[in-house]
Amino acid sequence: MPVPTIKYYVREGLLPPGELTSPNQASYDETHERRLRLVRALLDVGGMRVAEIANVLAAIDDPARPLHKVLGAAADPLGTAHDEHEDTEAASAHAVVADLVSRRGWQVHESNPAAADLSKALAALGRLGHSAFVEVLDTYADAAEQVARADLAYVARCVAVEDMVESVVIGTVLGEAVFSALRRLAHVDASARMYGTDGSKEHETS
Amino acid sequence: MPVPTIKYYVREGLLPPGELTSPNQASYDETHERRLRLVRALLDVGGMRVAEIANVLAAIDDPARPLHKVLGAAADPLGTAHDEHEDTEAASAHAVVADLVSRRGWQVHESNPAAADLSKALAALGRLGHSAFVEVLDTYADAAEQVARADLAYVARCVAVEDMVESVVIGTVLGEAVFSALRRLAHVDASARMYGTDGSKEHETS
Repeated sequence: MPVPTIKYYVREGLLPPGELTSPNQASYDETHERRLRLVRALLDVGGMRVAEIANVLAAIDDPARPLHKVLGAAADPLGTAHDEHEDTEAASAHAVVADLVSRRGWQVHESNPAAADLSKALAALGRLGHSAFVEVLDTYADAAEQVARADLAYVARCVAVEDMVESVVIGTVLGEAVFSALRRLAHVDASARMYGTDGSKEHETS
Repeated sequence: MPVPTIKYYVREGLLPPGELTSPNQASYDETHERRLRLVRALLDVGGMRVAEIANVLAAIDDPARPLHKVLGAAADPLGTAHDEHEDTEAASAHAVVADLVSRRGWQVHESNPAAADLSKALAALGRLGHSAFVEVLDTYADAAEQVARADLAYVARCVAVEDMVESVVIGTVLGEAVFSALRRLAHVDASARMYGTDGSKEHETS
């Protein structure tokens, strides 16, 4: 890792300063190394920005911070929060989300940013003529429940309590990248099975 | 929509120029409007960059372009492609992905960028001490297969052939945002059930 990069991370609050061993030399211990690996993963795989990562790390390092606030800090940059539109699509997407949450008995507060992100995505689909997409929403929700249960079981089984918060951040951001890649692979496979091609056939627009 | 924004989109190749009705007035038709809604959705909900969107739109507009190339153009910016590391974590992640694909009989080429993204995310998890995460990989893959089947069935049922390519792009990008939001909601719910809190309890590090 080049020294200017490390200095940049220290300046941006992503990494605590090393211990000065001489006026122009600093030493970094294992905690630094681990933090550096986490920063790289959030940057490279999670696609998060430096300022977002600084926020999440501050939350990880503050034991007084409630767990759900840390989770919020990790998950929020993945979404894009509020929807400036106030049209019928937005209203109907809101209603769909409220209905989904209540129908499935999900214990989530209606102000959860993920609920707003879901509404926003559904409203955008509606505006593009895909309001029928809500028909697959329960299949998505089933899959999301399975994944969430597996995530929680993994954390409960494999992670020491003191690493819990960091692991939840890692799981939220990297688990997202893992599922996204798997969904794309499964698309290619499902499409090969449905259309009997290996995915390399030209698409016909006749 | 402010005029400078529209001009900017035209300049960046996101929108075809309107028809000049007078030297300083252009008229935009329904095709423009639809394209504008698509651009907004990919920007706001998909979190894609202008240059990436221009690429995807060029692919949508080129009927000679094979479907899987368009899909690739839509999905690639979601991942971050190649992994510069060549350590044991990278090698073992590669092996895990190859095994997963063959074990599940997925008809995907090993050079598929999603396979590389999956390897990269798993290698990053490994470097952070979470190589045991591969234990939940099949649960993730089951969920991804369900979602992919639902997506394909939706496209086959609801979408006219001429809108197929655009719909696949919309589904890839916005479906990703939908699933991500659902996963986060399901996390909050699963965590409330497992730890008997509403997610607002302080986390204890004792």
